Amino acid sequence: MNPSLNELLGIEVPLIQAPMAGVQASALAIAVSNAGALGSLPCAMFSPQSLRDELALLASGTRNPFNVNFFCHTPPQPDPALEARWRQALAPYYAEAGLDISAVPAGAGRVPFSAEAADLLHEFRPAVVSFHFGLPSPELLQRVKSWGARVLSSATTVAEARWLEAHGADAVIAQGLEAGGHRGMFLTDDISTQVGTLALLPQVVQAVRVPVIAAGGIADAAGVRAAMALGAAGVQVGTAYLCCPQASTSALHRAALQSEAARHTALTNVFTGRPARGIVNRIIRELGGMSAAVPAFPLATAAIAPLRAHAEKSGNSDFSPLWSGQNASGCRDIDAAELTRELAAGFRH
Amino acid sequence: MNPSLNELLGIEVPLIQAPMAGVQASALAIAVSNAGALGSLPCAMFSPQSLRDELALLASGTRNPFNVNFFCHTPPQPDPALEARWRQALAPYYAEAGLDISAVPAGAGRVPFSAEAADLLHEFRPAVVSFHFGLPSPELLQRVKSWGARVLSSATTVAEARWLEAHGADAVIAQGLEAGGHRGMFLTDDISTQVGTLALLPQVVQAVRVPVIAAGGIADAAGVRAAMALGAAGVQVGTAYLCCPQASTSALHRAALQSEAARHTALTNVFTGRPARGIVNRIIRELGGMSAAVPAFPLATAAIAPLRAHAEKSGNSDFSPLWSGQNASGCRDIDAAELTRELAAGFRH
Repeated sequence: MNPSLNELLGIEVPLIQAPMAGVQASALAIAVSNAGALGSLPCAMFSPQSLRDELALLASGTRNPFNVNFFCHTPPQPDPALEARWRQALAPYYAEAGLDISAVPAGAGRVPFSAEAADLLHEFRPAVVSFHFGLPSPELLQRVKSWGARVLSSATTVAEARWLEAHGADAVIAQGLEAGGHRGMFLTDDISTQVGTLALLPQVVQAVRVPVIAAGGIADAAGVRAAMALGAAGVQVGTAYLCCPQASTSALHRAALQSEAARHTALTNVFTGRPARGIVNRIIRELGGMSAAVPAFPLATAAIAPLRAHAEKSGNSDFSPLWSGQNASGCRDIDAAELTRELAAGFRH
Repeated sequence: MNPSLNELLGIEVPLIQAPMAGVQASALAIAVSNAGALGSLPCAMFSPQSLRDELALLASGTRNPFNVNFFCHTPPQPDPALEARWRQALAPYYAEAGLDISAVPAGAGRVPFSAEAADLLHEFRPAVVSFHFGLPSPELLQRVKSWGARVLSSATTVAEARWLEAHGADAVIAQGLEAGGHRGMFLTDDISTQVGTLALLPQVVQAVRVPVIAAGGIADAAGVRAAMALGAAGVQVGTAYLCCPQASTSALHRAALQSEAARHTALTNVFTGRPARGIVNRIIRELGGMSAAVPAFPLATAAIAPLRAHAEKSGNSDFSPLWSGQNASGCRDIDAAELTRELAAGFRH
């Protein structure tokens, strides 16, 4: 058991509950932090008011450290030609559903970390702040560090791990391609560069001096043991928490995670514009996992949303992002504190 | 340490040197088998005479069990339209090299397991026979089993593992997508179904009763420990053996494996027609990893061969299949017996 990550983050168990935007808020993070690991609040889809509310809940729900997570992409310029091509690709689905594609509002979907968010965070002084898609500007990063927060970010290649260390990350999450949700990739958009956890982790451990947290495919204590054998300082687990009562995962999503369908996930950009891993469903199957027709992240989301809402009303997940890693075998209706204790057993011999 | 694989295969160390057609023959297998693990002879590219010669060398070189490996694809019907499209895609490279594309001989490249091969094997009675791309016909499989050989094959999904167990494999190799060379996939040709070792292995272990051998991304004793923590009965290692003096890996290939270039491998079908993992080089970069222009396996090979030969003459690997897994960090100029002993340390605590 490597004590350095526990000391760095002020936790008892070197386990991070992966932030999962759209399927959880403070309730899951509170349960995990109270169990001695690091709970995470995913903030990419919150309004400023929701962010304040959730931070207040977290601060009152646990006296232990917690992590707040932000995306730090550069918002794209809307591109009318790309947007038109995307709507053309989706038009048959709108017609089938009897929906009006011209009524789709343009929408951001996900907002990047900002000075306003930093101001708000400063009031709550979270012990850990993690980022996806690299790191924010040096000025914003310094503001986060000013109250003593430790900064984490995800690397999907050795080059990204070296970049994060050089630019101020206090620890690096080695995100193997088994991981669910958005790939943290930020130095490349070529998905052939993405590496499985068993291969990525030891190469990142060898390449950087900061502690390395293993993510991707870890679903139980045996997975934790495997990651620690490969030199990890700790692990991050997401998918296995998705069926806990403290997550807000939809019933459709929970059912898919606990079915044979979860055996086949794929990287897809159709839900947001960036590659993310989810269970293969109709929209992925028909448009292809990585579609050339999507607008830049996060602009793809707006035109999918009405299809998703319409289908889900009748219990259909054809257009839902069923985020999952490649190992959903840990998904059960189990209290998040209990799951945390089960995973923690992997750190003992 | 799980004794069952050792008992099943008659070996001391539950480690299999992966068969690697084109870069090794009996010398590597002999060194590994004599060190107490299971050496493998890849037979897919041998003529009948070479197969006989190599089997004789193996039989006289070690008294320990060894594995002989065959592909078991169905040879495709040549398709003139596909072949023409492929030659069109390669024409600019032929022009650049000053080669005559109309002089390219049609050639099989790789031959599947056959009754003739079974006859020859019967003389040598190898203790283990492994297959790639599923299993041969029930008749051929029974012939192999008739002299007591144990049969292995690779599964890249849970469904393939179940199929192999149901059709007579004595053990299943869970081939994670980190693995170098050809994907063993045979129930699907959709590469989005391919799973990282850390996620695939425990799910296969859970799904079948036969021993499961972990493959893909394992480069050192720590990797062995990780695989065993996940329930493997043993491991298969390929890439780490490529720079041993007993391998016939070319100097160009060895140099690439020990350079930063090895950080970026990709699945590509351009060398043979089936997805296989190699270090990204010019032909992969320019034609795309998975090209729609290739003829069926193994017919793509013939038209690439002259380009490769021409380029390699001047020390250029732009058209060479630089097979490698996603973790080449174990590649050193180290005797295969010594590497086997280093890896074997991973089975002890």
